[in-house]
Amino acid sequence: MTIGIGLLGMGTVGAGVAGILTTPAGRHPLVAALQLRRVAVRDLTRPRAVPLPVEILTSDPNAVVDDPDIDIVVEVMGGLEPARSLILRAIAAGKSVVTANKAVIARYGEEIGAAAAARGVYVLIEAAVGGGIPIIEPLKQSLGGNRIQRVSGIINGTTNYILSRMAAEGADYAEVLAEAQKLGYAEADPAADVEGGDAADKIAILAGLAYGGPVPREAIPTEGIDRLDARDVSYAAQLGFVVKLLAVAQLVDAPAVPAKQPPSGLQLLDVRVHPTLLPRSHPLAGVNGVNNAILVEADPVGEVMFFGPGAGAGPTASAVVADILNIAGIRQATGGHPGGGVDPLLAAGSWRQCALVDGACTTHRNYVRLRTTDQAGVIGKIGTCFGQAGVSIQSIVQFEADSEAAEIVVITHEVLEADFRRALNAIAVLPEVASVAACLRTL
Amino acid sequence: MTIGIGLLGMGTVGAGVAGILTTPAGRHPLVAALQLRRVAVRDLTRPRAVPLPVEILTSDPNAVVDDPDIDIVVEVMGGLEPARSLILRAIAAGKSVVTANKAVIARYGEEIGAAAAARGVYVLIEAAVGGGIPIIEPLKQSLGGNRIQRVSGIINGTTNYILSRMAAEGADYAEVLAEAQKLGYAEADPAADVEGGDAADKIAILAGLAYGGPVPREAIPTEGIDRLDARDVSYAAQLGFVVKLLAVAQLVDAPAVPAKQPPSGLQLLDVRVHPTLLPRSHPLAGVNGVNNAILVEADPVGEVMFFGPGAGAGPTASAVVADILNIAGIRQATGGHPGGGVDPLLAAGSWRQCALVDGACTTHRNYVRLRTTDQAGVIGKIGTCFGQAGVSIQSIVQFEADSEAAEIVVITHEVLEADFRRALNAIAVLPEVASVAACLRTL
Ligand SMILES: NC(=O)c1ccc[n+]([C@@H]2O[C@H](COP(=O)([O-])OP(=O)(O)OC[C@H]3O[C@@H](n4cnc5c(N)ncnc54)[C@H](OP(=O)(O)O)[C@@H]3O)[C@@H](O)[C@H]2O)c1
Ligand SMILES: NC(=O)c1ccc[n+]([C@@H]2O[C@H](COP(=O)([O-])OP(=O)(O)OC[C@H]3O[C@@H](n4cnc5c(N)ncnc54)[C@H](OP(=O)(O)O)[C@@H]3O)[C@@H](O)[C@H]2O)c1
Repeated sequence: MTIGIGLLGMGTVGAGVAGILTTPAGRHPLVAALQLRRVAVRDLTRPRAVPLPVEILTSDPNAVVDDPDIDIVVEVMGGLEPARSLILRAIAAGKSVVTANKAVIARYGEEIGAAAAARGVYVLIEAAVGGGIPIIEPLKQSLGGNRIQRVSGIINGTTNYILSRMAAEGADYAEVLAEAQKLGYAEADPAADVEGGDAADKIAILAGLAYGGPVPREAIPTEGIDRLDARDVSYAAQLGFVVKLLAVAQLVDAPAVPAKQPPSGLQLLDVRVHPTLLPRSHPLAGVNGVNNAILVEADPVGEVMFFGPGAGAGPTASAVVADILNIAGIRQATGGHPGGGVDPLLAAGSWRQCALVDGACTTHRNYVRLRTTDQAGVIGKIGTCFGQAGVSIQSIVQFEADSEAAEIVVITHEVLEADFRRALNAIAVLPEVASVAACLRTL
Repeated sequence: MTIGIGLLGMGTVGAGVAGILTTPAGRHPLVAALQLRRVAVRDLTRPRAVPLPVEILTSDPNAVVDDPDIDIVVEVMGGLEPARSLILRAIAAGKSVVTANKAVIARYGEEIGAAAAARGVYVLIEAAVGGGIPIIEPLKQSLGGNRIQRVSGIINGTTNYILSRMAAEGADYAEVLAEAQKLGYAEADPAADVEGGDAADKIAILAGLAYGGPVPREAIPTEGIDRLDARDVSYAAQLGFVVKLLAVAQLVDAPAVPAKQPPSGLQLLDVRVHPTLLPRSHPLAGVNGVNNAILVEADPVGEVMFFGPGAGAGPTASAVVADILNIAGIRQATGGHPGGGVDPLLAAGSWRQCALVDGACTTHRNYVRLRTTDQAGVIGKIGTCFGQAGVSIQSIVQFEADSEAAEIVVITHEVLEADFRRALNAIAVLPEVASVAACLRTL
């Protein structure tokens, strides 16, 4: 049984996919059953890395989606539109879809998922998070017996590359970013990466799968690395920590503020993206360069971690082809025509309603850097402000910044965010405190 | 659609599985469709961790396998017989099987796989390797587009616990083993773990899946940690290495000795288990305690690693339930009765013939410790022996052992095993060399 594949897009990822499909030897024999029949691109005249018969190229994506010989549509063109419409059109035509497009899935996943469920087809997204790392399928199919407590990850390669170099060289953010752009590790417009939006897209997707319900993408508190000071990376290192851009999704069983109980039936989640201090012994602390890693904490499995290349033609194509193979495999099981329905694990429909917790009701450890006049007694005053707000402190260390100012770094225990903010407000108005120069979450 | 589950065994793993099946809230909704209908144990009077209605317990495993209300048989009793016969009997009755039994699968996987293929049912084995780590399913379903170059892993928790403590404390093997036994991390009879047999079972399974053909279990060269000297752990650390019990399966595209070309159509593999020096920066070097990790190197994905708890009731039960869910999910897709066939990815039938390479034709880096008389010139003589055999050396370091003897540690570059052995034979008869005290592989 041959299965017709249509590609929407033949850029970095598309070329990688075509490269696998056209060289099946040594791969799982099911690859040989996949036939690349149609490819849509913008510019028909551009030379392509993988040589393809010219008649299969088209500049009309609808021609791919509507082709009756195409069984599975692979969307690797990127962008929100026309990607979203093409995915919906393929679903309406009864075709399963594979996409690497985290931006579309994070925003329109609910609409797309509902359409797929109604039509009895699959929309698979392994490549949308973590590049080549198998993480979507393990979350959907291998950890289904668990109650998932937390998913946390380094899921943006560009920022991890920048942070790794800042840590290794003590270099400044702007300097490393410029070099990363030169080397092709960061885009000319790096906003989606460095401001955390890409990581937020991805954690929205992971949270939706881990907790069985869509997560409102726009409501995810997101902080990037674009305002991170090299000084904090260095102080963190001196205190035994590594700074990483962490994306976290976590079950909130009982909010720290009881009055904030959710309406019954609603599962509260704490989902966020921010630079984070990790103790050097943390499993994610050693993940460097453009690598990604996702740590899943769940009951009863405990901690499992998935590590690998977070982007690139080869890794991403590996994930796209995994999805294609899965759909092809199920087709063989059902004899080509879907029988009773879809595999609920692979389809990953939603089965729970989720809502984001009010950030003020969450608890965290914090790292704060204060610029102060170098006066006796200032540490005492700062300590008092924290104490009066009920914020317990793990350490206060004074670093020498320059001739006029001292810098005081405080690491708190795990404290209620509202209390912590109250303390910071009191500290900010102390005459000895010039500024609250940085404020980072700490694991 | 409810799916009847029968358990063969209700020990550590079985109780974990029953614990998940009887508390579905907060897990994937498909868990609620699984009904535990029959459980076989040896001793009906023994109190059980998970309370079950007394009428579902039986001391006759055949009563579980033959029960028409049981759709999936879960074998978690262990041992070779009657486990093997019961698995085959369940298959013959048209039931899919889930097992955690690496010993049975490593030895009878081919027979069991053929029976399952003939009957159109699944035999799933996620729990057989890496405890709670999703590794079998990613290998079968997420990496199918790749050509797998190497699978290497720390896949025995007991030995990794012992090695981690030897490294941290400089302690002796026998001493740490005794403590591990007291703490329940090692069995009263530790042979299968410390001599490497358990790791060999597991790498045989991984290799079979990664390369699509059964691997002759008994032919896997296996060396355990039972003769490992604390001295070598310490010297390795001083040279920047960590000693781990590594299981490796690797594609041999062209054997280093051309005359050893395999018959055409046969894929040569290098599969082995031995203590190995890993550079401290290697992804597997930081895996400590009872954790396991598996590194897969493949084209085009690159390096991906899977990390987590390698054993224990909860993790292993998580893997068993993943398999049960996968079978249940496919049943829903096919409307309860298999249509055209089985999903070839999940079924993982063999598609290639594999054979093990002649060890003498493989290439490796080596660590050698020689006890010598502390004489000028001995290093020169040793170097000459290596040079004459064509073995190129990366470093020679002399350590002071005690008053009479010196110890010389040599680390070679990657060299042909046959050449290396030839050099060692020449060195062993040098008058200045008292003994070749240790010889370990190095990455
Ligand atoms: N690159 C990665 O490492 C990576 C990793 C994970 C996920 N992804 C995701 O994968 C997707 C593709 O990324 P990419 O890096 O492969 O992008 P890319 O290199 O820019 O390729 C985009 C492709 O789509 C085609 N295309 C764009 N708009 C089109 C339109 N309206 N009609 C027809 N063809 C159109 C382009 O045609 P032309 O060639 O003619 O311009 C090009 O072939 C994105 O959603 C991205 O987020 C990428
Ligand atoms: N423990 C782990 O962490 C782990 C991890 C991965 C894989 N595994 C594998 O999982 C399997 C089970 O391990 P386990 O640790 O759960 O073993 P276990 O604690 O010894 O439990 C074995 C169970 O099987 C029952 N049983 C044994 N022989 C039987 C027979 N002939 N008829 C009926 N019942 C029989 C025993 O009954 P009684 O209770 O009445 O004695 C017991 O309930 C093994 O293959 C093991 O290699 C275990």
